[in-house]
Amino acid sequence: MTIPGLQVDFDSAVPVYRQIAEGVRRALLAGRLAPGAKLPPTRDLSRALGVNRNTVVSAYELLAGEGLVASRTGKGTFLVAPRSGETHAEADDEGTRWPRPLDDTPWFTGFSRAVEGAGAGQLASIYTVAISSEGISFAGTFPDSELMPLDTFRRAMDEVIGEGAAEVLGYGPTPGYPPLRQTIAAEMRDKGSPVSSAGVLVTNGAQQAMDLVFRTLLDRGDSVVLEQPTYTGALSSLQSLGTRIVGVPCDEQGIRPDLLAVALERHRPRLVYLQPTFQNPTTAVMGEHRRREILALAARHRCVLVEDDWAGDLGFGDPRPPTLHALDGGRRVIYLSTFSKKLMPGLRLGWVVAPPPVMRRLEALKQIQDFGTSPLMQAALHRFLQAGGLAEHLRAVLPVYRRRRDAMLASLERDFPRGVHWTRPDGGLFLWVTLPARMNSNDLFVAARQRGVLFSRGELFHSDGSGRETLRLTYGGVTPERIESGISILGELLRKHWPAGSADTSGRPAETVPIL
Amino acid sequence: MTIPGLQVDFDSAVPVYRQIAEGVRRALLAGRLAPGAKLPPTRDLSRALGVNRNTVVSAYELLAGEGLVASRTGKGTFLVAPRSGETHAEADDEGTRWPRPLDDTPWFTGFSRAVEGAGAGQLASIYTVAISSEGISFAGTFPDSELMPLDTFRRAMDEVIGEGAAEVLGYGPTPGYPPLRQTIAAEMRDKGSPVSSAGVLVTNGAQQAMDLVFRTLLDRGDSVVLEQPTYTGALSSLQSLGTRIVGVPCDEQGIRPDLLAVALERHRPRLVYLQPTFQNPTTAVMGEHRRREILALAARHRCVLVEDDWAGDLGFGDPRPPTLHALDGGRRVIYLSTFSKKLMPGLRLGWVVAPPPVMRRLEALKQIQDFGTSPLMQAALHRFLQAGGLAEHLRAVLPVYRRRRDAMLASLERDFPRGVHWTRPDGGLFLWVTLPARMNSNDLFVAARQRGVLFSRGELFHSDGSGRETLRLTYGGVTPERIESGISILGELLRKHWPAGSADTSGRPAETVPIL
Repeated sequence: MTIPGLQVDFDSAVPVYRQIAEGVRRALLAGRLAPGAKLPPTRDLSRALGVNRNTVVSAYELLAGEGLVASRTGKGTFLVAPRSGETHAEADDEGTRWPRPLDDTPWFTGFSRAVEGAGAGQLASIYTVAISSEGISFAGTFPDSELMPLDTFRRAMDEVIGEGAAEVLGYGPTPGYPPLRQTIAAEMRDKGSPVSSAGVLVTNGAQQAMDLVFRTLLDRGDSVVLEQPTYTGALSSLQSLGTRIVGVPCDEQGIRPDLLAVALERHRPRLVYLQPTFQNPTTAVMGEHRRREILALAARHRCVLVEDDWAGDLGFGDPRPPTLHALDGGRRVIYLSTFSKKLMPGLRLGWVVAPPPVMRRLEALKQIQDFGTSPLMQAALHRFLQAGGLAEHLRAVLPVYRRRRDAMLASLERDFPRGVHWTRPDGGLFLWVTLPARMNSNDLFVAARQRGVLFSRGELFHSDGSGRETLRLTYGGVTPERIESGISILGELLRKHWPAGSADTSGRPAETVPIL
Repeated sequence: MTIPGLQVDFDSAVPVYRQIAEGVRRALLAGRLAPGAKLPPTRDLSRALGVNRNTVVSAYELLAGEGLVASRTGKGTFLVAPRSGETHAEADDEGTRWPRPLDDTPWFTGFSRAVEGAGAGQLASIYTVAISSEGISFAGTFPDSELMPLDTFRRAMDEVIGEGAAEVLGYGPTPGYPPLRQTIAAEMRDKGSPVSSAGVLVTNGAQQAMDLVFRTLLDRGDSVVLEQPTYTGALSSLQSLGTRIVGVPCDEQGIRPDLLAVALERHRPRLVYLQPTFQNPTTAVMGEHRRREILALAARHRCVLVEDDWAGDLGFGDPRPPTLHALDGGRRVIYLSTFSKKLMPGLRLGWVVAPPPVMRRLEALKQIQDFGTSPLMQAALHRFLQAGGLAEHLRAVLPVYRRRRDAMLASLERDFPRGVHWTRPDGGLFLWVTLPARMNSNDLFVAARQRGVLFSRGELFHSDGSGRETLRLTYGGVTPERIESGISILGELLRKHWPAGSADTSGRPAETVPIL
């Protein structure tokens, strides 16, 4: 049982619930549904469309908020008849109940440049795909929620609330819960960084850490240099701030120093944003020599480095080289990381370490932005860390992630056609695939989604629309069985859409032209 | 036992731990402490200075991070001798370990306008005073942590973690946890607002809701109209965005429509920010007629209203008039509120309700800013609300706040000199005091702080440096006994510093000149 004419486009930037509501409205206006008609029960419609029931509930609520439908207890949801002299299509912006049209209205059009820039809304749309629970998802970079250390964390949270300390129930210090800051600082000192707790600001995940750093250092029109491809969340934040983004190509060790030198010379950026360890999306790890080269370049150009170390603790084998922050002694490196990937995204806890002049401003902006991260959540995490919960969790989960990586590598070997290349990362949650130039990951995405398989299109990680021959496949949150069937479907689609010998088969794509 | 020459200025914008660290460094450089000397134990120094022990720990850690001091297990913290050929005063910015000076260095000076504007750091400094636990504090607007419904909340959180649902442990939908959004929407519908859950965005407290709205609608140089005086967090956010702030004077019902009309005509603002109920800081409540006047003005000037309803549920007696949002049907009003004041600030949970075109952009910016508020915390709050925890809590706590208001009114009546006026709010957490023009709340603040009594200076709520004859006194988080002794001290100081008959005794101050 569905709505006549309703089609849901899962890859659209318009949320699914909104598409459903719009579909109902269109069906009414087009006469495909009569005023007074009963809508399908939410359970039935959600099954028919293959969406979560909550999505349908939200769609009906949206329509109820507009007065287009009404619920009758025990009977269901019905379309409301328009008032006389008024049709649903003829909403007057001034005089009648708002909101009538589901899309933009002339009501207000003056938005800031922060939200009107290219790509401002793109991240939300990508994220909707990434957190989708439909089918087999290799999109997103999520740890497996099945593996989360619930008992230890539950106990930690229970103790903290039970103690009822005013300092965790009330407003806390803006830069963070002091014992958590001390623990983070101590752990970073163990890894060779000269950090005191005063240099640590706790944030709502690494995304906020990064966005705060960018907002603190960058004005509209400033240049920023970063790896091409790079993390989509960084690109969206920088686009929203109106900065000039200069992407520098990478090799298997990350950003190329020769091209970085040219970019620094030509663009004189205010900062360089890098992920030296298990780079997202290419999985590249910079060797120590490369790290020192980058630091020397930054020093020569008096340039700030922002090191995003989201995956530093997610290595499977040999220890990684020291962080840029440790090698540099924190002089010109701002460091950020998160507990989302190594523990639980739902905590929304990350941090940034910066020299005092930067820290003072980060604190001021954090204060203005949200008064500080929940002290209760921070206290629970601190208690969990004190109980040794993180080390225990990593011991349990890293071998699982490694086995899943191996399962994905084996499946790729078996199912993907010749000419496709992929990385073999020694840590992290995903790997990076490069198709032959004749193939296209956007087309593959559309075909795969219809078969119930999701992944991240390479284009999303490029600031210039390139990267269509690449894609990212996350194994961390997927069981080996599902990895096997998902990769098998992708392999089948690749062979079907791009049969061997069709057009160019040269294998590797031409290198992207650097924006230099 | 203290550091020679060290003085702590609690009202300084420099955090106390940093002042202590700076004091140690100065003592070393001036020869008041010898290299190798042992520093006072943190417990002793914290007692001597009257600060929290964590503050001293942070100061020592900051110094340790700079290599100025070192701890020896079981023995204490010692000053380190400088390396030969190098003094602590001669830190070379390029070659030596960073950070040496505790203040700004030539290392990096290019900060964004968002953090370099006037007042960008002021909020953090005010906040430090507001959350201080020293003495008797009438500063801040905090609910009493002693009264928080810990058992119910603890159970809710425990259940939610115990169920271990992936949707609360992983990343959640950016606009919020769907059942919480539905609950918030249903509650607002009960209050007359046409809201569906799709129109609700959950935020990290009302501060983030407000800051997101401002960032979504305002560019540098845009005009904003607001009540004079108003919430300091709004002023700081707007200053950081570089907007032109136009304060409109208030009477006992809030913003004056006659002057608002002039401001709208002259400044053509993009939005008007208002708190119609228990306005912070004046405690004014707009009557329904006034509300309709304001809505009509906004409609005439095609102007967006931002309604900050932080205290809507904190009334003691008669019900308040409908919200602007309800009266307007949400057509040109963006509504925001919070669970911080009516429940627990430590949750960091608030929300904003906006029409779809605005909501879509708020979501995009929230995504860029932090990927969404913790779904775990939202789920725990939702469970708590479902269990009826909030209604129960308000039934318990509102009579307590009313008794505290009465205690404060009685003490003011008894202890404050003639010519001082104050409001008698029928809800909320504080009241607003107006001194005779010859008195000055900045001077009173300094004197009171030495006697262990804190309050909020009126100047902080004014965008133009006026308001020195005003102050805000919070009763919500203070017991009647402490209210009595605190007000008695303030009364004594007023009489001592401004004896009756000294200079002008005309009573009421001249009205502030509006910025029109």
